[in-house]
Amino acid sequence: MVIILKSIGRVHSPFKKKEDIEPGKYANKQGFKKIEGELEIEEEFAQGLSDIEGFSHIFVIFAFHKSEGYKLLTIPLLGETPRGVFATRSPHRPNPIGLTVLKVIKRQGNIIRVSGMDMIEGTPIIDIKPYTPRDQKEGIQIGWLTDKIK
Amino acid sequence: MVIILKSIGRVHSPFKKKEDIEPGKYANKQGFKKIEGELEIEEEFAQGLSDIEGFSHIFVIFAFHKSEGYKLLTIPLLGETPRGVFATRSPHRPNPIGLTVLKVIKRQGNIIRVSGMDMIEGTPIIDIKPYTPRDQKEGIQIGWLTDKIK
Repeated sequence: MVIILKSIGRVHSPFKKKEDIEPGKYANKQGFKKIEGELEIEEEFAQGLSDIEGFSHIFVIFAFHKSEGYKLLTIPLLGETPRGVFATRSPHRPNPIGLTVLKVIKRQGNIIRVSGMDMIEGTPIIDIKPYTPRDQKEGIQIGWLTDKIK
Repeated sequence: MVIILKSIGRVHSPFKKKEDIEPGKYANKQGFKKIEGELEIEEEFAQGLSDIEGFSHIFVIFAFHKSEGYKLLTIPLLGETPRGVFATRSPHRPNPIGLTVLKVIKRQGNIIRVSGMDMIEGTPIIDIKPYTPRDQKEGIQIGWLTDKIK
C-alpha cells in the first residue's frame, strides 16, 4: 500500500545543513532546548493553526528530505553496536519520516516560533499535532539508550 | 512537494471499525491503557525491529486509512467549538497521518504485542520509533483541551 502525502510548510532553523548538528553535542535530554526556529505553514493551510497557541508543546511530523536509503540494522550516532532501525531515531529508515516535540513560543499568522529545534533549514513539514497528557509517559525504559543519554 | 510512503505492516486491534471507538468513553488519559493489540510488521522489515523490546514505549505513525477529506476548522469529538485541525488529533487532516504512543508487552519475530491500542483493525503502519526521555514533557498546557480530559 502506497501513501501519498504533501508538504504543508517548511522549517526555518539555525542548522543550515546536516553537518551543523554535531553528533553527541545535543545528546542529552535538554540538548536542543534553547535552539529556536520557525515553522512556516503554507497560506492555504494557515487557518488550521487556529488554537494551537494554547498548547505549550506540539508534535511535528516531517520528511527527512536529505535521507538516502536505509539499513534495517544501523549503527546509531550514540553507539557502536548495530541496532534495529525501528529502535532508533535514525533519519535513514524505510519511510524517511521524522518526529519531534517542540515548545511553542508564539504564533503569528502562518508562522509558529518554537524552541527545541532539531531539524535543518528547509525541512518539509507533514503534520502538526498537539502534545497532550496521553503522550506523557512515566517510568519509561529505553533499552540500548540507557546510560547513553542524560 | 509530494512525499511517497509505503505501509510497513498492519495493526491488529479489538476495534474492528471506527464506530467501535465510542466518543468520550476513552477520553481520559488512561482511556486506552488496557486495550491490547498487535503490530504485524512485514517480513521484509522485521529485522528492523531488533532491540525494540528494550523500550517500554514506542511511537507508531500510521495512516488514517478510513479518513476522507478534511476541514481546516473542525469540531473535535470533545467539544462543540470549531478548532484549527492542527490543534486537534482528528483523523480528518491535510495529511491523514496518526500518531500514538503504545506500551510494549513483548515482541515475537515480526509481531509486537502492545497496550494502549487506539487504532482500528487493519490500520497501515508507516513507522515505529522508540519513545525517549526527550519526548517526556512536563508542565504542559493544553489550550482548548483543558478540563476536557482527566
